[in-house]
Amino acid sequence: MKNDMKVFDNLESEVRSYVRSFPTIFTKTKGYKMWDHEGKEYIDFFSGAGALNYGHNDEKMKQKLIDYIMSDHITHSLDMASDAKATFLNTFHETILKPRNMDYKMMFPGPTGTNTVESALKLARKATGRTDIISFTNGFHGMTIGALSVTGNSMKRKGAGIPLQNVVTMPYDNYVDDQDAIDYIDRFLEDNGSGVAIPAAMILETVQGEGGINAASFEWMRKIEALCKRWGIILIVDEVQAGVGRTGSFFSFEPAGIKPDIICMSKSLSGYGLPFAMTLVRPEIDQFQPGEHNGTFRGNNHAFVTATAALDYWKDSKLEENIKDKAEKTHAFLERLVKEYPELKGEVRGRGLMVGVACDVEGLSNEIAAKAFEHGLIMETAGPNDEVFKLFPALTIDDEGLEKGLNIIEKSIQDVLEKKPELA
Amino acid sequence: MKNDMKVFDNLESEVRSYVRSFPTIFTKTKGYKMWDHEGKEYIDFFSGAGALNYGHNDEKMKQKLIDYIMSDHITHSLDMASDAKATFLNTFHETILKPRNMDYKMMFPGPTGTNTVESALKLARKATGRTDIISFTNGFHGMTIGALSVTGNSMKRKGAGIPLQNVVTMPYDNYVDDQDAIDYIDRFLEDNGSGVAIPAAMILETVQGEGGINAASFEWMRKIEALCKRWGIILIVDEVQAGVGRTGSFFSFEPAGIKPDIICMSKSLSGYGLPFAMTLVRPEIDQFQPGEHNGTFRGNNHAFVTATAALDYWKDSKLEENIKDKAEKTHAFLERLVKEYPELKGEVRGRGLMVGVACDVEGLSNEIAAKAFEHGLIMETAGPNDEVFKLFPALTIDDEGLEKGLNIIEKSIQDVLEKKPELA
Amino acid sequence: MKNDMKVFDNLESEVRSYVRSFPTIFTKTKGYKMWDHEGKEYIDFFSGAGALNYGHNDEKMKQKLIDYIMSDHITHSLDMASDAKATFLNTFHETILKPRNMDYKMMFPGPTGTNTVESALKLARKATGRTDIISFTNGFHGMTIGALSVTGNSMKRKGAGIPLQNVVTMPYDNYVDDQDAIDYIDRFLEDNGSGVAIPAAMILETVQGEGGINAASFEWMRKIEALCKRWGIILIVDEVQAGVGRTGSFFSFEPAGIKPDIICMSKSLSGYGLPFAMTLVRPEIDQFQPGEHNGTFRGNNHAFVTATAALDYWKDSKLEENIKDKAEKTHAFLERLVKEYPELKGEVRGRGLMVGVACDVEGLSNEIAAKAFEHGLIMETAGPNDEVFKLFPALTIDDEGLEKGLNIIEKSIQDVLEKKPELA
Amino acid sequence: MKNDMKVFDNLESEVRSYVRSFPTIFTKTKGYKMWDHEGKEYIDFFSGAGALNYGHNDEKMKQKLIDYIMSDHITHSLDMASDAKATFLNTFHETILKPRNMDYKMMFPGPTGTNTVESALKLARKATGRTDIISFTNGFHGMTIGALSVTGNSMKRKGAGIPLQNVVTMPYDNYVDDQDAIDYIDRFLEDNGSGVAIPAAMILETVQGEGGINAASFEWMRKIEALCKRWGIILIVDEVQAGVGRTGSFFSFEPAGIKPDIICMSKSLSGYGLPFAMTLVRPEIDQFQPGEHNGTFRGNNHAFVTATAALDYWKDSKLEENIKDKAEKTHAFLERLVKEYPELKGEVRGRGLMVGVACDVEGLSNEIAAKAFEHGLIMETAGPNDEVFKLFPALTIDDEGLEKGLNIIEKSIQDVLEKKPELA
Repeated sequence: MKNDMKVFDNLESEVRSYVRSFPTIFTKTKGYKMWDHEGKEYIDFFSGAGALNYGHNDEKMKQKLIDYIMSDHITHSLDMASDAKATFLNTFHETILKPRNMDYKMMFPGPTGTNTVESALKLARKATGRTDIISFTNGFHGMTIGALSVTGNSMKRKGAGIPLQNVVTMPYDNYVDDQDAIDYIDRFLEDNGSGVAIPAAMILETVQGEGGINAASFEWMRKIEALCKRWGIILIVDEVQAGVGRTGSFFSFEPAGIKPDIICMSKSLSGYGLPFAMTLVRPEIDQFQPGEHNGTFRGNNHAFVTATAALDYWKDSKLEENIKDKAEKTHAFLERLVKEYPELKGEVRGRGLMVGVACDVEGLSNEIAAKAFEHGLIMETAGPNDEVFKLFPALTIDDEGLEKGLNIIEKSIQDVLEKKPELA
Repeated sequence: MKNDMKVFDNLESEVRSYVRSFPTIFTKTKGYKMWDHEGKEYIDFFSGAGALNYGHNDEKMKQKLIDYIMSDHITHSLDMASDAKATFLNTFHETILKPRNMDYKMMFPGPTGTNTVESALKLARKATGRTDIISFTNGFHGMTIGALSVTGNSMKRKGAGIPLQNVVTMPYDNYVDDQDAIDYIDRFLEDNGSGVAIPAAMILETVQGEGGINAASFEWMRKIEALCKRWGIILIVDEVQAGVGRTGSFFSFEPAGIKPDIICMSKSLSGYGLPFAMTLVRPEIDQFQPGEHNGTFRGNNHAFVTATAALDYWKDSKLEENIKDKAEKTHAFLERLVKEYPELKGEVRGRGLMVGVACDVEGLSNEIAAKAFEHGLIMETAGPNDEVFKLFPALTIDDEGLEKGLNIIEKSIQDVLEKKPELA
Repeated sequence: MKNDMKVFDNLESEVRSYVRSFPTIFTKTKGYKMWDHEGKEYIDFFSGAGALNYGHNDEKMKQKLIDYIMSDHITHSLDMASDAKATFLNTFHETILKPRNMDYKMMFPGPTGTNTVESALKLARKATGRTDIISFTNGFHGMTIGALSVTGNSMKRKGAGIPLQNVVTMPYDNYVDDQDAIDYIDRFLEDNGSGVAIPAAMILETVQGEGGINAASFEWMRKIEALCKRWGIILIVDEVQAGVGRTGSFFSFEPAGIKPDIICMSKSLSGYGLPFAMTLVRPEIDQFQPGEHNGTFRGNNHAFVTATAALDYWKDSKLEENIKDKAEKTHAFLERLVKEYPELKGEVRGRGLMVGVACDVEGLSNEIAAKAFEHGLIMETAGPNDEVFKLFPALTIDDEGLEKGLNIIEKSIQDVLEKKPELA
Repeated sequence: MKNDMKVFDNLESEVRSYVRSFPTIFTKTKGYKMWDHEGKEYIDFFSGAGALNYGHNDEKMKQKLIDYIMSDHITHSLDMASDAKATFLNTFHETILKPRNMDYKMMFPGPTGTNTVESALKLARKATGRTDIISFTNGFHGMTIGALSVTGNSMKRKGAGIPLQNVVTMPYDNYVDDQDAIDYIDRFLEDNGSGVAIPAAMILETVQGEGGINAASFEWMRKIEALCKRWGIILIVDEVQAGVGRTGSFFSFEPAGIKPDIICMSKSLSGYGLPFAMTLVRPEIDQFQPGEHNGTFRGNNHAFVTATAALDYWKDSKLEENIKDKAEKTHAFLERLVKEYPELKGEVRGRGLMVGVACDVEGLSNEIAAKAFEHGLIMETAGPNDEVFKLFPALTIDDEGLEKGLNIIEKSIQDVLEKKPELA
């Protein structure tokens, strides 16, 4: 029986979404390319929303995974000790933490972004005895109730069906024109009558992905860190989408020179697109009792294997150099685009290869992304009104792939604008 | 570099737990057996807390998974359409739902138990416009804030660091001696002055795993279903631990003859121990907007592949017969045990191969499990005070493996009791 | 300009209620009698829902109040010291607390029942560091959010417009037929997996007024007190309606022999129907900082004056003897009623002069109360479905007044039943 | 027995506060003067924190009250109809509402500020079906849980012992230097990703009393009103402290030209310092069911009598002229003060006769107020750190009284500064 799209309409829940934006059945993939069941080839500028920073089905990781499975190493072990896990712990420590002088304990919550966020929020509250979390406008941290409470998007929040509590939303960098959001936060914290108590933690992304590719300045991040230090607030950086090289360095906060108290990782951490998450915690905050936060899939041995192999990319500077090179080309291209096509009312956003263009024309970004799909490019939109088309190529992409993808974007814009003379 | 246990002490968070109960590094596994790095063999009566109902590294699933990976089929696709997913949808529908006359939509939340529970709670609230959930004493549904709010265990709940809201706990079947919990619940619901509003949903396990292997009677479940129908309450059955054959049938609620409105599945659903979860939803409740509940690892193609292969076990009655046979042997053995060793103050609990013995002697179950580990058996404890030692053999276990495991249990009991003459 | 009822329809909010049950304008009152603007006389078996235990406009209190006002003593003083307040503190201590060997601090919250309850809940949470309160089915404690959260009535709860949190409702004495509610509560508290944490406090009425004149047994109260002691739970008794002699003794819990940790008083405390409330607190729980709970009308000097005068009634046993005598007569009458008029499907409820008849016929109690109003008796209904007609005569009523009132009730029942032959 | 201060130490709760600032027993009062039990005379610049805008024991009101009591009119009637209530309804409507073209329904909640606020919050949530309330920094609305949740002061909030929910705090006018708070609020409301949902209501004071005599500009209020209109948000103005003439007009918002949807009144509404509160509600929001919000002391007949008499003050412009005159004198005096005594680091705040001086020297305002008490002036402090000494003379004060009071303030400042040469 040949599968067709009807099976999704008939059997899958209405909540399905990307299958609606990219309505075809994918059957094969490699690096930055994907093919569907009719053999059509696509350039992937979506990369699993940041879960495939190394591209699809990386050969070295694949081989390690195949070897592991073939030799009947342990697949599922909850948080029992496995060889694969021990090797990952050691390798991550040696390759990532030690060179950066980062002394963190590694915690394995359930294997998704929302689970690492939940573990971080719980731990911050337990460690401080306080209940509030400060989150930021347009932050996105997940769909389970704890993580959803610190997520800004109103449509997602309404999905909870209950008021979301114990959170105070503060303005992200540059949220209100001409106003320094730090003054605002500072005033709320220092004023005994502000109605805002000193929170357990602040949680932030250095570049907001779902929120619209908003990149905070390094100075803002340093001021936030200073506020946290001053008031004894735990600083949680959610690296789920921006981490693992997406913005140029392994951790996205490195160039700002800050040291978060808790770091949430998932998406590209496994390297191969396998479910995997890790919460890095400063030892003095590592206060859960054994088993106080648990879950069946904490630790995923297949992911330990591929994640260990993926760390090879960070043993020299080649990947970082490629990101830098491709990021520069992409930024230059996008800056040209917004100039050349003023009808877009476009603004280039982002950092490294976490970039996008915000179009101040309702619905336009979605049309461009849809047209790009027709032309063989996979690209999603983001932002509270889906106003940003978002470029997330594999970090390992070569010049040919990048150019091909960028050309499709330009062509798609031309096609869309052609049908909309009223924008000119 | 050879891995040793120190790496976990040095680098992993204090929250780690099973590695403390089973302190060795596992390197190989097959069916119901595991081996550690020193070559010691173990019988596995733990089965990943129910995530490995088909045993470890099942050969047929393994081959399908290897083939899939080798041919560069798509690994990560969020909820885009892949061939693997289409095949799973079809196969699950044909093999499981259709023969049981079950008309449900399949939703893929994040790939863990707590994520399917969160999706169910949100959906129930959204669909009804009500906020409360009725959960049951000693229920266990996960560690994220939504799922934790319906989990009974006080140590786990305190880990939240915030009051857990929008939930009313009602007594599970047989919770208070000589009192019919249904009368109790009924009275609260029908009385306008009870302080308990008609909830959005009730969520329950048919056999409570973490809560102490408490099996509800079929009659109780039917009364609960009737109450839900009477008041328009959504009935959610959490099949994460009890489902996929653990109690004898694919769904644990089948012999009770009830039809839940929402069914939460995870753990053994992938068959191979891979992170995977699914929420089954009656079409009329399937009311999320596209993307209203999302997540990076909703849908896991490797798991779709193995889960499809695992469904072969349900195409004939062989597996069910084996469960029946082994369950009878296990129950008979345990009943003999508690009679022969009255010092245990033991009570046999459970249904199918989801069984255990509650020992009314503080700390005794943990000592027996620890001794069993020495003797080469992996077995965990459960219940609010860890008072139950819990037998979860692979459903595919053979007589030899089962007997070997049971013998180790008896020997472990003898060893422990020998050192405790005061119990005699 | 002569006032007529239209002014209420035109100018007052729709939330007005008793004016709908008793649709006339009252212009004069004395003792147990009221007169309306057309000169019609009424017997008052409502007594301001327990705020007028000494009858209306008691002559001695009135004289003291007039003298106080005439001499320009201080009327409003927040919680500054006034002579009137000092005298009340001393007199209440000498007349009520000392003879009962009760060592409590007196706190003056806002001058209403809901305010004393709020102060009690806040104090209990602050003193224990816990967040939950156990309330009881059909409890009624007030309409502000804190007090409403421990109130059972579903219509009232919905008025909040938000989920009411940090409360667990437990069954009141005799809530479920043939089930001992104490076993339930006990089990929930002692089981680490029950989902119910040890609360900050339990709050209860010894006789539930609004909830349907449900009188708890003394044994049940003693068991509750024992549970509170065992688990370090603060016991709050809400004496707002049942206190100040309504059930026969000054405090309604006296005959049970219990000693609450916090006692909430209001309604008849001022004696004269003036807004007034007091929270009695065991010294070790008296942990608010100065001004941590405040309010403009904490302390009401006019009420201090009349409340001091009212305490004269407790300097000898005459009032208590009158209550006893009238209560016996009333109970005997009601018992005869329910026997003689089986159509009522009546059940006599209550204690002392806090009594009523629950009629298991929908709407019947309201019809009887409405008919009684026509015949010159003011009497309200209570219970989750208004199924109880409620007798609250002044505690100072004489035989003539009591008999007149009871006769009107009997006549009203006869009139109503006559029109309802189908009940026979 | 002569009362002395020990009675308060021995018998009253630790929460007592003003008795600590003004440690003497008051026995007589008239207009703007008070006398203690030793005959010492005080000028009252406190006026019951705004509850005595007409001064103490106003002769006309007193006579009406005496007449009412003497003739045995009804004292307590819950919300049954009394002549006194009908007269108040008519008079308030004729004197206040009609001339201002205000079409509001009058609701009588419990007789305090916190109760009117609770009724307003509940009603706004019920009418909109939304749960959040926007409150403002340094707002003060009461101590019951609902009202406390919208109160800014951190010490008061902690007294709740639970997290306070369903509220978002926004910056009051001029909260952060050089930032326009309206832009900020506007951005949060219009952005779908802000994490702040459209609330049921905004609640604000036009001049924040407890929060530090912060007066919002009329322009800011109009912008707030426009925001509320744009988004369908109910605008609640809490007039408890600023209303009834304190700022110069009957309603403090009149000169701004706004029309709130709900108005909360209490304190000086009774005129005589009696407990009394009223919630004014636009008819279309008047959606409570009969009795959905109730309470024993809703409606206070003594207060109806004096409140009706008090409205005479608003039948001509004399009172308003006196307020204007005295306010000008007071402002001029305070402006001179802060110039002449730069050591105060003083800032004059407020509007009408709701004024104060914020001293940016820790503890200084409290010392000045304490010294003033020694010199025979009663004056309190406000603000999150008690940094403001607050002048609340009776609105009926004459020149002699005002000057006497102002002179005491200046003398007290001189005395305090003399002892603090380090401030010079």
